[in-house]
Amino acid sequence: MDKKAAPKSSLDALVSLCKRRGFIFQSSEVYGGFAGFWDYGPLGCELKRNIKESWWKATVRNREDVEGLDASIIMHPAVWKASGHLDTFSDPMSMCKGNCRKLMRADQIWDIFDESPIAEALRGMLGDAGRIATWCKGKGKGVAPGLYTVQHPEHLETIFEQLKSVTDLHALYVLLATPAGEPEALPCPNCGGVMTEPRPFNLMFKTVVGPIDDPSNVAYLRPETAQAIFAEFPNVLTSSRQMPPFGIGQIGKSFRNEVTPRNYIFRSREFEQMELEFFIKPDEAIELLCGHVAKLTPETDLSEPQPDWGWECWHKYWVEQRKQWLIANGLPKDSFVEYWQKPDELAHYARACVDIEYRFPFGTQELEGIAARSDFDLSRHQEHSGKSMEVFDEPLKLAVRRLSDEEKAAFRAKTVAEWTARGKEATTAETFVDRLFEGKYIPHVIEPSSGVDRMALAMLCNAYEEQTITDEKGKEDVRTVLHLAPSIAPVKVAVFPLVKNKPELYAKAREIYRSIRTLCNCYWDESGAIGRRYRRQDEIGTPWCVTVDFDTIEKDGTVTLRDRDTMTQERVTLEDLRRRIMEEVL
Amino acid sequence: MDKKAAPKSSLDALVSLCKRRGFIFQSSEVYGGFAGFWDYGPLGCELKRNIKESWWKATVRNREDVEGLDASIIMHPAVWKASGHLDTFSDPMSMCKGNCRKLMRADQIWDIFDESPIAEALRGMLGDAGRIATWCKGKGKGVAPGLYTVQHPEHLETIFEQLKSVTDLHALYVLLATPAGEPEALPCPNCGGVMTEPRPFNLMFKTVVGPIDDPSNVAYLRPETAQAIFAEFPNVLTSSRQMPPFGIGQIGKSFRNEVTPRNYIFRSREFEQMELEFFIKPDEAIELLCGHVAKLTPETDLSEPQPDWGWECWHKYWVEQRKQWLIANGLPKDSFVEYWQKPDELAHYARACVDIEYRFPFGTQELEGIAARSDFDLSRHQEHSGKSMEVFDEPLKLAVRRLSDEEKAAFRAKTVAEWTARGKEATTAETFVDRLFEGKYIPHVIEPSSGVDRMALAMLCNAYEEQTITDEKGKEDVRTVLHLAPSIAPVKVAVFPLVKNKPELYAKAREIYRSIRTLCNCYWDESGAIGRRYRRQDEIGTPWCVTVDFDTIEKDGTVTLRDRDTMTQERVTLEDLRRRIMEEVL
Repeated sequence: MDKKAAPKSSLDALVSLCKRRGFIFQSSEVYGGFAGFWDYGPLGCELKRNIKESWWKATVRNREDVEGLDASIIMHPAVWKASGHLDTFSDPMSMCKGNCRKLMRADQIWDIFDESPIAEALRGMLGDAGRIATWCKGKGKGVAPGLYTVQHPEHLETIFEQLKSVTDLHALYVLLATPAGEPEALPCPNCGGVMTEPRPFNLMFKTVVGPIDDPSNVAYLRPETAQAIFAEFPNVLTSSRQMPPFGIGQIGKSFRNEVTPRNYIFRSREFEQMELEFFIKPDEAIELLCGHVAKLTPETDLSEPQPDWGWECWHKYWVEQRKQWLIANGLPKDSFVEYWQKPDELAHYARACVDIEYRFPFGTQELEGIAARSDFDLSRHQEHSGKSMEVFDEPLKLAVRRLSDEEKAAFRAKTVAEWTARGKEATTAETFVDRLFEGKYIPHVIEPSSGVDRMALAMLCNAYEEQTITDEKGKEDVRTVLHLAPSIAPVKVAVFPLVKNKPELYAKAREIYRSIRTLCNCYWDESGAIGRRYRRQDEIGTPWCVTVDFDTIEKDGTVTLRDRDTMTQERVTLEDLRRRIMEEVL
Repeated sequence: MDKKAAPKSSLDALVSLCKRRGFIFQSSEVYGGFAGFWDYGPLGCELKRNIKESWWKATVRNREDVEGLDASIIMHPAVWKASGHLDTFSDPMSMCKGNCRKLMRADQIWDIFDESPIAEALRGMLGDAGRIATWCKGKGKGVAPGLYTVQHPEHLETIFEQLKSVTDLHALYVLLATPAGEPEALPCPNCGGVMTEPRPFNLMFKTVVGPIDDPSNVAYLRPETAQAIFAEFPNVLTSSRQMPPFGIGQIGKSFRNEVTPRNYIFRSREFEQMELEFFIKPDEAIELLCGHVAKLTPETDLSEPQPDWGWECWHKYWVEQRKQWLIANGLPKDSFVEYWQKPDELAHYARACVDIEYRFPFGTQELEGIAARSDFDLSRHQEHSGKSMEVFDEPLKLAVRRLSDEEKAAFRAKTVAEWTARGKEATTAETFVDRLFEGKYIPHVIEPSSGVDRMALAMLCNAYEEQTITDEKGKEDVRTVLHLAPSIAPVKVAVFPLVKNKPELYAKAREIYRSIRTLCNCYWDESGAIGRRYRRQDEIGTPWCVTVDFDTIEKDGTVTLRDRDTMTQERVTLEDLRRRIMEEVL
């Protein structure tokens, strides 16, 4: 995949629009801002609400097989011990032992260099051998101090020779930073100093609960919403009358103490997630119940879940569901990439993981992930809490009862063979079969997990366009427009009175505005020429503008409906208008 | 006000129902729970969503004069310095220097005693002089260790004499704890030890942002959502084309490190708020603009805001708006109390504050507050950030321009006199008038602030009823029912097929279920007798149950609609059903 940054110009324009029109502000801007934290303004919070509402409806409310949850952000620290976050949710950190003493992510030194003033200066020189020569000879005079001058003056001539053929910035960094031909640990991209060995830094924000500031009272802000779903699995199971296959969905804030928050709202320290844990029966249970597990082929019909589906079909089903949701909410098929992790990239417990990556202006980056996580999470919580995470599946018990002793023995032998082939202990497999024969198992899980903020960013990036248009007088002008899906657009309809100074027309327009406002988010604008009012709405993605004019009051009661994307205008009745809103928005 | 606890039995029954049916679980229950943190299950999170949605619609979306905001939970620490939270948002804490070393809120020692095993034991003995005598003489043998026996054995006889006439538990605690007639600092209610002098303990949860664990990187989880609104005031003002009077509303999580979280979800460490900051012009600006400020009288019509309203009318307007919202969402007028804080109870900057208090089973407690906070908050942020929080009011400038020099001088003299009479510096008043004459001022604010969790608790408490009903065979039975307002009820409609084994009837019922589900949250139940299905829905507050029976398919297509509160049944068409849902729910 292409992870390199595309030009950021369109992102810069979007960022500026988002601040100017009240989508997104820096947190605590009047105090100089706060890195990694963002606030959503009047339009941004409606955008986010719409994304969340659409996800909740599609994933929770409109499904009989999914329940909702809204758990606390601060949970018992044992949750994070069980989940593995306390031990392994960390980034490798290095500190510069040279002049600047900067702390940075060891795995991001490349990127940090890439954004440094040195890299900026080098980029300007790369195509210009004369200037490179001057810079190298002059040990960086007149430009930002060079790494080369700090680190390896003795290799100046050699490196200068090699520089002529180098076109890649990263190669140049290594070249400047290390003696020719001897790659070693990268130096500080800031001052060229030697970096310490990387050490793990846990990304969970710590706090202390209760009045006594003591290590025993340390707790963490959740780094993901998923674990609450696992921890509350027994309560939801008991209270909801659900049995696998069923899911639990949750939307909420998560926190990660990112060392280098970056790319606008893409990677921030406080963000919001939409996560579904969809619990399924283990494949072995399906085999006992149905006599087989459905094979996943390119021909498999994934539109409607089937009783004989194993994890593979369920996983693919959720990949398709999520893609359909993205498309329905305005991200075209070709705007994202479906990346199936290779076996050596998968976590040890994972069966499969698909990253849906969006082509952001700063590179193709993960938008959401759909993972098949086996029974790993519930098993860990069962082990750590001592509380059962099993379900009792009556039909399974009955199915086992119908088997002959030979059939049971064959099933047991087959299962043990498969498990040991996957590197598990035979005794573990035996215990699993014993429990299964009693109708009991720990469910496996498919996890579609996505971020609200990066979803908002992808939708904004995808929607943003600067169109050069020519008006009726032949004058060229740039129209900025957000082609947001109507379901996501913060304002659905804007209502304009053609003129302000005709009381009857004005009153009619107000009446129409008020009646539409009961249906959806609606904006009133009475100032300036109609053309300017259209532009104001285009810029914030309002799909429809309604103008109330003299025909409305003098003739047929129809209004002018103007479409954001095509800029076409048509006269419609209020009934038509209401119907269209209901169809496309609600 | 009566702050004493009413019997908790109905709360206990409600708590049990909430766990059993999936409204509210303890956070991290499988790990023994986590004090002060709660999770909302499948029905609870819909209930909370409904409360928030109803507030958002009434307070933000359906108003032209209110904008929304969704700010980060972690903000720049300077915000909390400016707001005063860093210096003064604390509880007085005392530690027991005796055996138990317990830390507790100095202002809650009464209540802690009240819930202690000693108090429990004393309560059992209070009406029984013989047993009290035995217990005192025996120094607490056979009951929980008595404070008396720990502290003041020398006064045993005196106290015993006095005990006979004591009926109040708190008086008894002092009596047991202190030498007769000499009240002093209360002893530890746990072991009777001496308590330290109270010291302030800040209630904000601390964390560290960024990889370097250093005091300069300490940040706080917000203890209220309001401050983000003040900090982002300039950004919202600039991007939204609003001018005072207008408001900014926000819903979101807040965190307070309560020493003793208590009363179920009423006082927890993590909670959700719905806050509106409604910015108004200072009364002096209204006077310049309108020539007068409207007087608030019992006859003032508060249904529609008027240009000549000063803070008093606006404050009362919001009190009325909030009461109307509570009533519309199912809390009857007589279930809450409106408490106007006395002048000596108000914060120094506040003009007025009304607490709306609900009669909870554990006492009458604050549900929400509506405060007139003057320009205190914005002024503090202007002072601390150095960024202007003023608005420029063009019509005000024009109004001033029309005044004669004499009129200006008279206005200035009057304002300075009023301000100095309120204890302000004359120079402060002069500067204010100078700015006002340029059309500039810092807006004042009315703040209706309410808690989602305590709102949910009040609505659940109010809705809960155990009815004794007699069936057609004369058998008595208890029906548990939640009389939640349809707007708030997690499930709006339940659809039942009369029988499961008639494919045509079953299919028709499924079709009806699916069509209603597109309108609102709808539940399908096909198991058990219809009567039992009704009861399941009554218990979770579903307003309507729809039964599809033979008449539906064989005759007129009508269904049986059963009302939760009256238990009456009527036959309705699907059109009627849909219309009723639209009217009462959406």
